[in-house]
Amino acid sequence: MEKPDYSDWLNKRKEHRKLLNPENLVERIRRGDRVALAEGITLIESELEEDQEKGRRLVALCLPYSGQSIRIGITGVPGVGKSTFIESFGKQIVSSGKKLAVLAIDPSSGISGGSILGDKTRMQDLSVNPNVFIRPSPAGKSLGGVTKKTRESIFLCEAAGFDYIIVETVGVGQSETVVKSMVDFFLLLMLAGAGDELQGIKKGIMEMADAVVINKADGENLRVAERAAIEYKNALHLFHPNQNEWIPEVRLCSGLEGSGITDIYEMIVRFERNTKLKGWFDVNRNKQSSKWLIEALNEMILDSFYDDPDCASRLLSIKTKVLEGKLSPYAGAEELFAHYLKKRHEI
Amino acid sequence: MEKPDYSDWLNKRKEHRKLLNPENLVERIRRGDRVALAEGITLIESELEEDQEKGRRLVALCLPYSGQSIRIGITGVPGVGKSTFIESFGKQIVSSGKKLAVLAIDPSSGISGGSILGDKTRMQDLSVNPNVFIRPSPAGKSLGGVTKKTRESIFLCEAAGFDYIIVETVGVGQSETVVKSMVDFFLLLMLAGAGDELQGIKKGIMEMADAVVINKADGENLRVAERAAIEYKNALHLFHPNQNEWIPEVRLCSGLEGSGITDIYEMIVRFERNTKLKGWFDVNRNKQSSKWLIEALNEMILDSFYDDPDCASRLLSIKTKVLEGKLSPYAGAEELFAHYLKKRHEI
Repeated sequence: MEKPDYSDWLNKRKEHRKLLNPENLVERIRRGDRVALAEGITLIESELEEDQEKGRRLVALCLPYSGQSIRIGITGVPGVGKSTFIESFGKQIVSSGKKLAVLAIDPSSGISGGSILGDKTRMQDLSVNPNVFIRPSPAGKSLGGVTKKTRESIFLCEAAGFDYIIVETVGVGQSETVVKSMVDFFLLLMLAGAGDELQGIKKGIMEMADAVVINKADGENLRVAERAAIEYKNALHLFHPNQNEWIPEVRLCSGLEGSGITDIYEMIVRFERNTKLKGWFDVNRNKQSSKWLIEALNEMILDSFYDDPDCASRLLSIKTKVLEGKLSPYAGAEELFAHYLKKRHEI
Repeated sequence: MEKPDYSDWLNKRKEHRKLLNPENLVERIRRGDRVALAEGITLIESELEEDQEKGRRLVALCLPYSGQSIRIGITGVPGVGKSTFIESFGKQIVSSGKKLAVLAIDPSSGISGGSILGDKTRMQDLSVNPNVFIRPSPAGKSLGGVTKKTRESIFLCEAAGFDYIIVETVGVGQSETVVKSMVDFFLLLMLAGAGDELQGIKKGIMEMADAVVINKADGENLRVAERAAIEYKNALHLFHPNQNEWIPEVRLCSGLEGSGITDIYEMIVRFERNTKLKGWFDVNRNKQSSKWLIEALNEMILDSFYDDPDCASRLLSIKTKVLEGKLSPYAGAEELFAHYLKKRHEI
């Protein structure tokens, strides 16, 4: 059997990519063109040099039209029912006449094959709704890379006029902290299980939550869920109150039956109203922007050392000397730094 | 009344400092000359440019003779009885024919006026013992600075032939993590109080401990202390086992009466034997050295940006633009980084 020839198709795609220019894209994005939005995010995600330059311009062009959405982070361990919850919650949002974008960060997909991306049957109703845009982030080499892309995707979605942006992540590692750093409201989805209710989720993650929602509170589960809610409420009391005067709330819901969803939506509307009234909403966004600026800058500066093959190989030989006790760690660092400065001159 | 004239005395001191040269110092330090050791540490701590160069050379000269001590970190909240404990524990060490150096890090002394340094009556017996050297670290501007000086002071003490080095800190903040990163054995000193036994100390600090010692377990306190010991044992069970196969132990003692001290000394001797036998002792030291190398290097590289007045002022103006929504944080970071690279060329 002959191999099918894709070269024609590939060439057409390449041509199409070349035609994508930021000025044209931003115009289409602002008109709410979902194909343009998807193409714009692809540009941001691209590793190609020329695409990255275009991506930078696109973000700069979208920036003036960004910022007006409510950014909601949703996390929970695998099996907690995130998709079903977002499906129910998303329907509530669109039925209130609002537009919703869902961005999924899956730091584990590089290893597991994609626990978020792989499941094509998820959010079936939402995915065909004209007021909903769903976009998974591909597995990046670094969490930092995924972070940058998701943050910039938020700007694009906002320029496209989405009122709510959900950033979804699997509660398995560091990604929760990253999601917390880019959203206005952080929702932790949990399950009421038998035994220790606080198992399976790190205390540090609970400490970040603006709301703990116990999912699958239906049928025979309901009683257990109600007991768990009391335990979570007690646990949340152990933490310091938030600077924004918001006291984290505990809610029961059933993504499947849809119970409790309206209540959660109203809680977030109230959160927005209260924090905007007192100015905490903007205080939080400004903090996030400042932190992002410094983090990105530090990463660029440090990468200019570690990405340099010559510096990296010197680091290895100096590290060997340090481990052999021939050089103090501090003296080793000074030697490497002197070399770094010298290299910078020569460039 | 006339002001006394110190100028003569000051000039003499300056002359003396000039005569201090690293080659001469290291020779005296290796002979166990405690005055030379103190002068050497002063050199390391000095902020003067010429002293720093000498300090670097001194550390390099001492390095080949360093490494053979057991480094013990001791921390606990104010009032837990650290001085009395170290006094008793130190006597046990010297009575076993060993030499002891005590280095105290007090990150709070800049603010509080010196909770460690201020108390001149502490460790009265130890301080006059010829086999003991006690040295408080002055309050540094940054914890990083204090850290570097303490780490290098350890090298000097080891070159002077001290068998045990205690690094003491007040359990009030970040300094415990810093101490943990420079010692072989980390001992957390606690009190048995009424009420919640785990109050007053962060869980993260307990997680780092190789031993939790409940001090002041004497008189009417004894029963409460015994109950507390059980609670701490249970709490320690919640943590992951250490890589070095050492299971953290809980001990009672009375620094005042001296009870339990021999047992703690023997525990540390056993720790040393076990971890050296299986190689974990060196694994830990190598990890610490590698981490120190990278941390120091990163700090130098980042400081080369933030200490530059021009870069710092540009950061301010870019941050303003970011907060006004005129520039994305990432684009701002790119602009600052480009400027940093350009500056490096020009130097």
